[in-house]
Amino acid sequence: MASAAAPDPTAAGGRAGRLAELVAREGLDALFVGDLTNIRYLTGFTGTNAACLVGPGERVFLTDFRYLERAEAELGEGWERPPAERDFVPQLAARMKGRVGFEDAKLSVRQLGKLQEAAGKRAELVPAGDLVEEMRAVKDAAEIERIAAAAGLADEVYLWAIEGGLAGRTELEVARSCEARIRESGAEPSFAPIVAAGPNGALPHAEPGEREIGPGALVVVDMGAQLDGYCSDCTRTFATTDPGDEARGVYELVRTAQAAALEAVRPGVGGRDADAAARVPIESAGHGERFGHGLGHGVGLEVHEGPRLAASSEDEIREGNVVTVEPGIYLPGQFGVRIEDLVVVGGQGNRNLSGLPKELTVVG
Amino acid sequence: MASAAAPDPTAAGGRAGRLAELVAREGLDALFVGDLTNIRYLTGFTGTNAACLVGPGERVFLTDFRYLERAEAELGEGWERPPAERDFVPQLAARMKGRVGFEDAKLSVRQLGKLQEAAGKRAELVPAGDLVEEMRAVKDAAEIERIAAAAGLADEVYLWAIEGGLAGRTELEVARSCEARIRESGAEPSFAPIVAAGPNGALPHAEPGEREIGPGALVVVDMGAQLDGYCSDCTRTFATTDPGDEARGVYELVRTAQAAALEAVRPGVGGRDADAAARVPIESAGHGERFGHGLGHGVGLEVHEGPRLAASSEDEIREGNVVTVEPGIYLPGQFGVRIEDLVVVGGQGNRNLSGLPKELTVVG
Repeated sequence: MASAAAPDPTAAGGRAGRLAELVAREGLDALFVGDLTNIRYLTGFTGTNAACLVGPGERVFLTDFRYLERAEAELGEGWERPPAERDFVPQLAARMKGRVGFEDAKLSVRQLGKLQEAAGKRAELVPAGDLVEEMRAVKDAAEIERIAAAAGLADEVYLWAIEGGLAGRTELEVARSCEARIRESGAEPSFAPIVAAGPNGALPHAEPGEREIGPGALVVVDMGAQLDGYCSDCTRTFATTDPGDEARGVYELVRTAQAAALEAVRPGVGGRDADAAARVPIESAGHGERFGHGLGHGVGLEVHEGPRLAASSEDEIREGNVVTVEPGIYLPGQFGVRIEDLVVVGGQGNRNLSGLPKELTVVG
Repeated sequence: MASAAAPDPTAAGGRAGRLAELVAREGLDALFVGDLTNIRYLTGFTGTNAACLVGPGERVFLTDFRYLERAEAELGEGWERPPAERDFVPQLAARMKGRVGFEDAKLSVRQLGKLQEAAGKRAELVPAGDLVEEMRAVKDAAEIERIAAAAGLADEVYLWAIEGGLAGRTELEVARSCEARIRESGAEPSFAPIVAAGPNGALPHAEPGEREIGPGALVVVDMGAQLDGYCSDCTRTFATTDPGDEARGVYELVRTAQAAALEAVRPGVGGRDADAAARVPIESAGHGERFGHGLGHGVGLEVHEGPRLAASSEDEIREGNVVTVEPGIYLPGQFGVRIEDLVVVGGQGNRNLSGLPKELTVVG
């Protein structure tokens, strides 16, 4: 799993080879991979129907007739690609022997039953946890550049949105225009953008509504782009006119907490300890109860992946993680503030992929 | 499940009440529902995290703090909504007793393990098949109107696209402009539109590419809208200039097959028999091998749901089903033709929700 040391970690062979080592270390003969994001990570395949079997000396990929050409174009060397029936799961099961792991957080109970029935006595299917997800949490250089490109694109959309102004438009108008801009830029939104003004900002996952954004409001904007498969995620809180001393005070407190958390995110630190670092200034100011979510999460092929930075996390931060750092304070009925950067965890310090300023920006 | 007779089939109470009857009939004390589409169908809830327990005398709904307000606004009468912890699955499991069914095609092996552990000996979790999906296959009047509205919106986008012309634009340009138009109309695409010209039309699931659409080409366009939760799905094949006699002949053959299939889709007919009816004229003309997919599928909250109209289907067509009827002929390296309508199966004849003409239309 030492991605930095691998000769060509973006090649299918590199990742599948490393997975095969993990599979052997777990005492398994092979791993059945059915999750499409995991398959994309291992093989490069972007279609919507496929399955793999990966183990020492075993690298089988199946898809249906719709995707044969795409598989040929996208898959790297080293994959056996037998002609597949429309329902190819039994076909793959027939290849299984010995102890075969499966992604127990992903595979449905019915699919497992079908697989085990098709595999018969030749194979014992055993839950194998999140082996591929754990690999995915540590990004290689090519992945980091893709995430950086997605983040850069989202930064541009932020600047464009600020240019267009916030006051006098509805939350929904702003959100939709940002979505459209992301698409025109050749990407997809990595999730539906959040634009939450005034009291709506106090709901951490508010849906943009038909309410017009007024003066003197804080406006939480949370969005990201997905480009070439990889996601970004960024939040800024803007003001329409001077929001007053209380709001400014809370804003600066979140900014202080975010800076502390950025310092705390280092290789070897627990996800829970980074989360705790962000809470120190917020709790000191008496707002501990108003920061009701975790500090952050990994970002990659999915906008939420490992590691988790939260009080209940058992993950350890590692070099090559790409994580959000996003403390917030939410005062019900009043306003909310959240500031979120996306950072690459490095041995010599982090690289912040979010290039937008963090001073409170007044946007007309 | 006789939706037409239910007094208020759109009310949560109506659907959950009917599900409770099915649950009892299966010898279960309750059904654990974790699939979000099934939850939306039963409760009206549109958030992304929830679970329910439904049985005779039992109607429990849980979501996390982010969605408490939304649940309050969206859920109908009759649901118990206890305050929920962030990870609410154990909390729900603690409510389980006796024989509790679960959606075995949806629940992951890990989730089942957690549920069973949390439920302990009070409850035995048993696979319960697709009870809610089977209810969803038969639409009530309000659902049909929503699907009709989505189909009408997609029809408008088709007409707008034809107005803009096809020749000289790339497949991707046409597809993206249709997507954008669907969004500007207040809906979402129910899937990424397919625009496949000339030889690409011979790939039933081609991705739109950067190739310019030339003259004399057949262009397969397959798209749908999702409006207020409900999807539509429609395909038309256009010509840029006269595509020649062979293409015209194949087009008319598909049109004949589609008309035959529309006649065959009636309550009480097997999904495989409707599929077979479409194949008769195509096989007679020697193109049997060139119609490599099923005749159709149900459409509703999801763009692919029950019943299936295909050679391998064991479903029976019922009044209130809303299904696509979409035969096609694909000549590798040359062109493809597919014509798809969306129809409501009625006791007194079907209602076709696709209002676009089916004569071969030459679009400049």
